[in-house]
Amino acid sequence: MSLLVVGSVAFDAIETPFGKTDKIIGGAATYISLSSSYFNKKVNLVAVVGGDFPKTDIEMLQKHGVNTEGLQIKENEKSFFWSGKYHNDMNSRDTLITELNVLGSFDPIIPESYQNCDYLMLGNLAPSVQRTVIERMKKRPKLIVMDTMNFWMDIAWDDLMKTISMVDVLSINDEEARLLSKEYSLVKAAKKIMAMGPKILIIKKGEHGALLFNQKQVFFAPALPLEEVFDPTGAGDTFAGGFIGYIAKTGDISFQNMKRAIIYGSAMASFCVEKFGTERIMNLSEKELDERVQDFVDLVQFEVNI
Amino acid sequence: MSLLVVGSVAFDAIETPFGKTDKIIGGAATYISLSSSYFNKKVNLVAVVGGDFPKTDIEMLQKHGVNTEGLQIKENEKSFFWSGKYHNDMNSRDTLITELNVLGSFDPIIPESYQNCDYLMLGNLAPSVQRTVIERMKKRPKLIVMDTMNFWMDIAWDDLMKTISMVDVLSINDEEARLLSKEYSLVKAAKKIMAMGPKILIIKKGEHGALLFNQKQVFFAPALPLEEVFDPTGAGDTFAGGFIGYIAKTGDISFQNMKRAIIYGSAMASFCVEKFGTERIMNLSEKELDERVQDFVDLVQFEVNI
Repeated sequence: MSLLVVGSVAFDAIETPFGKTDKIIGGAATYISLSSSYFNKKVNLVAVVGGDFPKTDIEMLQKHGVNTEGLQIKENEKSFFWSGKYHNDMNSRDTLITELNVLGSFDPIIPESYQNCDYLMLGNLAPSVQRTVIERMKKRPKLIVMDTMNFWMDIAWDDLMKTISMVDVLSINDEEARLLSKEYSLVKAAKKIMAMGPKILIIKKGEHGALLFNQKQVFFAPALPLEEVFDPTGAGDTFAGGFIGYIAKTGDISFQNMKRAIIYGSAMASFCVEKFGTERIMNLSEKELDERVQDFVDLVQFEVNI
Repeated sequence: MSLLVVGSVAFDAIETPFGKTDKIIGGAATYISLSSSYFNKKVNLVAVVGGDFPKTDIEMLQKHGVNTEGLQIKENEKSFFWSGKYHNDMNSRDTLITELNVLGSFDPIIPESYQNCDYLMLGNLAPSVQRTVIERMKKRPKLIVMDTMNFWMDIAWDDLMKTISMVDVLSINDEEARLLSKEYSLVKAAKKIMAMGPKILIIKKGEHGALLFNQKQVFFAPALPLEEVFDPTGAGDTFAGGFIGYIAKTGDISFQNMKRAIIYGSAMASFCVEKFGTERIMNLSEKELDERVQDFVDLVQFEVNI
């Protein structure tokens, strides 16, 4: 079924202990769209770039089946640009440059042809912009998934609360869950956050996997233990893209199916970190994906006779 | 089948954000013995205490089926004493007091009746003492599991290497694995450590679960997400006790069965942290344990059609 993805499409410049890149394609919606395209070929993108954004990158998205009708191109402006440097442990990074550019005045216009999308994935953006998207949908999607970050908790709390109250699934990392709930225990944090609106909460723990909560159940998806994490940029968005892509493909929003979706999201994220930027997730085969999902099965499956 | 447990039996005084205890029973071999007693009633203890150690605590161990014939009581000396204070996040602690006392001159004498033990669990002790135990076994046990800690990596490297080379399974935490291997990636660390001798490596990650490696496979057991961690003292030893206890009960040292053993160990550890010291794992019912293992099944099991 059809999926609407809203978020940044941007330039990233990344430095890790393994090397550095010039400006390459990045942005939450880029990773989400690419990742979800492995499951579902009805990916509709709403985003904004400047005149400096290469046509070849837009064509690359299109080749993956991403509908770019909703991608606004502001010819006389510059694309959003982020530059960061990862520390040796790959778990922390310094932001070197953030240039909002076109993103500063982003007005998310939803093309008429997107209006009946069944699934909505809100990549990290100002919560007021995310809310505008929800308000502009004439028919409420079957499932709205929202990603956000600590930045908005610091500077736009009330806006964030309003938007969070309107979504079905919130996806944040452990640090953000603690900040949002003011609870250290993630179980307590999850209860408080679900009381803010979302029926489902995903807490991403990076190399320690991810937790999926509803009011009654909890599911844990591990991260695949890897020899080398080459570049973590976009891993969270790739995870979200795999999650919503799998759900849009199957059209099943049961908790049972969300467990599978989380595993597919984790598999996609495990590819993402193997190379710089989107490089690895631009070129995946179905066979590779199946084998990777089997690695997750082997990693956690056991049998007990209770 | 019969199990030999060697390690400290001691006094602990614990302070957490939830309260503090006076001197209570602690020590690696106490937690290991108690935990393994839920699976296997042939637990043979080798340890040393001072004349200050309460008879009631020894009787408590005996009531759990622990054979204390190998528990030396040095009437005119004092028991090993450790005191620590946990920080608010429960992930780090300060050691306030360490009094080695009887442990400083511990000579691990193996009673004749213990000589045919099938399984040997070496709780954290000086690696030279652990090695003495192995050397004093007339028949090599079917499986030797060793726990150790960063302290010995700092002050007794050569001794540690010698002992590690003699065991089948090494159990350490993530920080210790990195210290021992000089690798940040746990996958790389595991390869290096298994090259030191052990065919199996367990890397404990506290609230982030545990990894089980052999040369070809890796298995991940999550920690149960808990509302409250009351006191983490002894959780690692309780985990090890559940692991070796389950293996001794089943008599099966296949990787497949070790996966189950790790889950049982994780279940035991999840009980341990619910109350101070050994309080919770002194009073567990079979039903509680079965329900907890089912919680682990529910937490990670999923079905995919690849």
